[in-house]
Amino acid sequence: MSVRVGVIGAGVMGADHIRNLHSVVPGATVTAVADVDATRAAGLAAEVGADGIIDPYALISRTDVDAVVVASHDSTHAELVLACIEARKPVLCEKPLAATVAECSTVVRAHEAAISGGIPLVTVGFMRRFDPGYVELKHTVSSRAVGDPLIVHCSSRTVTSGPGGDSEATITNSAIHELDTVPWLLDSPVVEVSWHATRASQRTAHRRDPQFMLIRTESGVLATVELFLNAGYGYDIRCEVVGEDGASRLAEPVRTLTDHALQHGHSYSKDWVPRFADAYRLQLGEWIGSITEGRTSTLASARDGLQASVVAQALITSMHSGGRTVAVESPF
Amino acid sequence: MSVRVGVIGAGVMGADHIRNLHSVVPGATVTAVADVDATRAAGLAAEVGADGIIDPYALISRTDVDAVVVASHDSTHAELVLACIEARKPVLCEKPLAATVAECSTVVRAHEAAISGGIPLVTVGFMRRFDPGYVELKHTVSSRAVGDPLIVHCSSRTVTSGPGGDSEATITNSAIHELDTVPWLLDSPVVEVSWHATRASQRTAHRRDPQFMLIRTESGVLATVELFLNAGYGYDIRCEVVGEDGASRLAEPVRTLTDHALQHGHSYSKDWVPRFADAYRLQLGEWIGSITEGRTSTLASARDGLQASVVAQALITSMHSGGRTVAVESPF
Amino acid sequence: MSVRVGVIGAGVMGADHIRNLHSVVPGATVTAVADVDATRAAGLAAEVGADGIIDPYALISRTDVDAVVVASHDSTHAELVLACIEARKPVLCEKPLAATVAECSTVVRAHEAAISGGIPLVTVGFMRRFDPGYVELKHTVSSRAVGDPLIVHCSSRTVTSGPGGDSEATITNSAIHELDTVPWLLDSPVVEVSWHATRASQRTAHRRDPQFMLIRTESGVLATVELFLNAGYGYDIRCEVVGEDGASRLAEPVRTLTDHALQHGHSYSKDWVPRFADAYRLQLGEWIGSITEGRTSTLASARDGLQASVVAQALITSMHSGGRTVAVESPF
Amino acid sequence: MSVRVGVIGAGVMGADHIRNLHSVVPGATVTAVADVDATRAAGLAAEVGADGIIDPYALISRTDVDAVVVASHDSTHAELVLACIEARKPVLCEKPLAATVAECSTVVRAHEAAISGGIPLVTVGFMRRFDPGYVELKHTVSSRAVGDPLIVHCSSRTVTSGPGGDSEATITNSAIHELDTVPWLLDSPVVEVSWHATRASQRTAHRRDPQFMLIRTESGVLATVELFLNAGYGYDIRCEVVGEDGASRLAEPVRTLTDHALQHGHSYSKDWVPRFADAYRLQLGEWIGSITEGRTSTLASARDGLQASVVAQALITSMHSGGRTVAVESPF
Repeated sequence: MSVRVGVIGAGVMGADHIRNLHSVVPGATVTAVADVDATRAAGLAAEVGADGIIDPYALISRTDVDAVVVASHDSTHAELVLACIEARKPVLCEKPLAATVAECSTVVRAHEAAISGGIPLVTVGFMRRFDPGYVELKHTVSSRAVGDPLIVHCSSRTVTSGPGGDSEATITNSAIHELDTVPWLLDSPVVEVSWHATRASQRTAHRRDPQFMLIRTESGVLATVELFLNAGYGYDIRCEVVGEDGASRLAEPVRTLTDHALQHGHSYSKDWVPRFADAYRLQLGEWIGSITEGRTSTLASARDGLQASVVAQALITSMHSGGRTVAVESPF
Repeated sequence: MSVRVGVIGAGVMGADHIRNLHSVVPGATVTAVADVDATRAAGLAAEVGADGIIDPYALISRTDVDAVVVASHDSTHAELVLACIEARKPVLCEKPLAATVAECSTVVRAHEAAISGGIPLVTVGFMRRFDPGYVELKHTVSSRAVGDPLIVHCSSRTVTSGPGGDSEATITNSAIHELDTVPWLLDSPVVEVSWHATRASQRTAHRRDPQFMLIRTESGVLATVELFLNAGYGYDIRCEVVGEDGASRLAEPVRTLTDHALQHGHSYSKDWVPRFADAYRLQLGEWIGSITEGRTSTLASARDGLQASVVAQALITSMHSGGRTVAVESPF
Repeated sequence: MSVRVGVIGAGVMGADHIRNLHSVVPGATVTAVADVDATRAAGLAAEVGADGIIDPYALISRTDVDAVVVASHDSTHAELVLACIEARKPVLCEKPLAATVAECSTVVRAHEAAISGGIPLVTVGFMRRFDPGYVELKHTVSSRAVGDPLIVHCSSRTVTSGPGGDSEATITNSAIHELDTVPWLLDSPVVEVSWHATRASQRTAHRRDPQFMLIRTESGVLATVELFLNAGYGYDIRCEVVGEDGASRLAEPVRTLTDHALQHGHSYSKDWVPRFADAYRLQLGEWIGSITEGRTSTLASARDGLQASVVAQALITSMHSGGRTVAVESPF
Repeated sequence: MSVRVGVIGAGVMGADHIRNLHSVVPGATVTAVADVDATRAAGLAAEVGADGIIDPYALISRTDVDAVVVASHDSTHAELVLACIEARKPVLCEKPLAATVAECSTVVRAHEAAISGGIPLVTVGFMRRFDPGYVELKHTVSSRAVGDPLIVHCSSRTVTSGPGGDSEATITNSAIHELDTVPWLLDSPVVEVSWHATRASQRTAHRRDPQFMLIRTESGVLATVELFLNAGYGYDIRCEVVGEDGASRLAEPVRTLTDHALQHGHSYSKDWVPRFADAYRLQLGEWIGSITEGRTSTLASARDGLQASVVAQALITSMHSGGRTVAVESPF
């Protein structure tokens, strides 16, 4: 009675999902892996006893595939998710839902037409919603333990941005996590944004880095977002909510503290893998559980995916117009 | 191909194992639950689609039970584990392995005779070996990042000792975690111990609390162990290894930090459940995985269980003889 | 050979200076205290064996006053500092140097004319420059231990704003510390600012609170400044400098950590007194030392005081023009 | 009206006192410096405008010396303090009060005879009593914020023990701070001790290092003391008091936190100078203040100095008799 999952995309993220579904998440079996690189697909598939294929549409239509994970290139998301909707199979699409706002809108419309108020098929992998730290922070906010939220501070710093990618990609691929997390934490959509340059790091010529953004929710809360992809020192994600009666923030996810060579402290991880391992595991667990039980999951919805893309687009507009404040307009 | 597990004991600990096996650990199905309280057994069994029965020996011999978790009263452990050995079924026995050193020895002898050098059937639930913090600490020690270990400090503080239990039980039920953890961390058995009273807490008349112990490993390292069951302020487990070149310790397992009412800090949990949730999950996962793959697991062995009981016994001897230093003698 | 100091203003801040000069700072004697409230002046004067008077100008001209501390109402600063310049007596003026940019300019011009390149008479009490935390942070930045600075985050949260005061006063009286600290830390003046509203705290009707500001230095660094006077939870001053190679920030100034009632943490102070006691002591010590030794002190200069006021004025302009970016223009 | 101080001993500790008295502590003037090394005495004396001499007894009898600091070799303490008592001049003697318990007793008897119930002349430099962290911890204990104290944990780790010194010196020179601090914190004398070896560090052949001690107060509290002089990683002093209702401990004295090269944390100092700078300054300030005001100071008394030596002696006895528990017997 295991849910039989097909995974599209066998890159770093897809491989992580495949291994999690195979050995960490209960109730799931990976039956098929599709990748443009047949060797890569075959290798990963063999690891978990699945079939490795090239064609993702073939994967979606297989009778031994009950549900689909889309972890392929961003540009393919929309078409693949539409095919899953067509096949009426639950799909977990890695963020972003689609490469453009227009594509996101198309997906959302098709999805809503297909389910007509029933249990959604499409979910989006904003896994921070499942990180135990963010969950505890959201609980603190909802419980009003720090009073009405007034201001939020976020920063996402990573070791390096890697090759490729431009200033816009910093927003659509990285800041997009904050663009989903902030309205989720505060239960209020983002209505206004502005983008602000900082002195540029010499570590990258490809894009402005760091970047600083202000986003304002419908409830009036100002959230600050610093994105620094080439921070060098470590993978470091922070979030603080300041309310009328106090403030609460993510603690550093640390397991041991070490004293050595006149220093006390802890190590940073180099990337998201250890930092968000629990979040990815718990997200997949909830997704599989919701399919098994035939209920709506608590994952980010297609609308959430669209909304984050709309906010990202407004930030890009601000970036290209001297940092002016830009209103976020919902497409429908 | 799921491992079909029968769980004996449907108290707090057994219930936790049952729910973990059902919904968090991949590859397992709970098929039977046995408890002296038939209603309790039936209730939990119904929750996971298993049969609830009274007789634990009947459970062990069921054909739909591949492996057994023993989480019943300490006094029953030896007989139940012996029955599992007899039935040649893998068994995860909650600590302690048995109520007395003599019983532990009987179990170890029977077990070793039964497997004659093959893959062990018996494992003991010293789950701290799977806590990510302890694992990281052990890795730091083994990697010699802090040099040769010289001294270790442990403390286990809990909110309350609850009703019942005497001074000896503090050692055999609570300190026993440290009695396993220290030699595991240092890869050297405990050879000498002494027990030391402190000023007694007024919160309990049943037992000396807190208690302080010194244990020395074969490698010469002195470990200090403070057990304070009625510490009141929170569930707080600490461990620090001090070496030639540095020191490393468990960080407080904290997810968020809050500022409120002139205070900054984090909350403690009231009991072990959130603190060691990952450890229990990972221990069960490794146990099920080892059964599926037909290999020796990395759980504590029957010998480890015996060894911890022998050290506990030496501490009780020291307690009853004015805190003198007592040598730990292995029974065979 | 003690420096004989007259203190103008016997309110909270003046009283603090008087007691510090009397019992904590070596080399100084308080000989006169002036306050509009004669009783208050007399009381404090008696405490340290000084004369209590009303007229501040009389104090400045006394032959037993070698140097003057101005801690009276902001509106009096300019005239009193001008009188000290006239009398050629060293003066430590509490921030702000004067109530308006125009007055600050007048003071700076008069001062520079009077000393014509010699040792300055006027210093401004931006005491954070003497806080050991800020000093260590500045050393980290200058030593390039975190590489070229790219972005700075500051926040100043206090328990309550008290009665009176408007939105502008938040900038000229409170944020002004950051307006001095940031260019001092980075060794580059502020050239551009913008002001941003947040959702308003219900705790005050008098002013927008919290407020958020962006200030940019000539070197291109963006600094974010959050001012939240009615934060309620404690007196909490933060500053972080993010550079190409790392980040460094003020630690919380904590002496003990306490576990109690399911909480771990430390207490906040209610106001600046314990937080900046060392800074005030060290600032006065340096001031007295520089007078004794006849050298230029390391305190903030009159120009620094002017510059901070100019930046504050630009922020107020931004506040009143929809948060647009405003260039900081030096008056001469 | 400054207190004119003569300082005996111009080594590291004496130099520190001289500079503190000259430039950090109000109300004092250093008028004479005595050292067996005439050049060293002259150099330091010149720095502060004092006379540099060789003969400490000549220093004590100078008419321009009102009070004396004894910071010379331990073996000279008793004779010099006796000479100060003879001259009826207040003396701050660095710990230990004298090299042996017998000498300490002689000093205490002579002192008590000389002052016959009046204001003491002799104080001992247990400066940790003035460290703001220890002061806050003592306040927490006295206020009963953590309930009746039950157990205390202390550790003192330093970078290196330097040349010379034996296992006994670890107790009489280093652990002696804890031997004073614990009874001061708990307001109860030490009545019983035991000494315990650990695996020995390879960094020193001169002495056992680390060492572990148990000391028990009259009130029944057990205190654990770890001394590790060659800890290598940094100068790190810890103290925690565990009570019926909670626990409180010294926070690490940290001013900034830095992220760099995959590490987060803070630096340790190499020695006591930055760690206890405030304690030394505040101790000297209180000493000078008490002399100026003609009152008993809050410094450790001659009896406190004797008591710490008696406890140290008991620990040495335990060390030489297999770690057995030794009762602390007061000499009179």
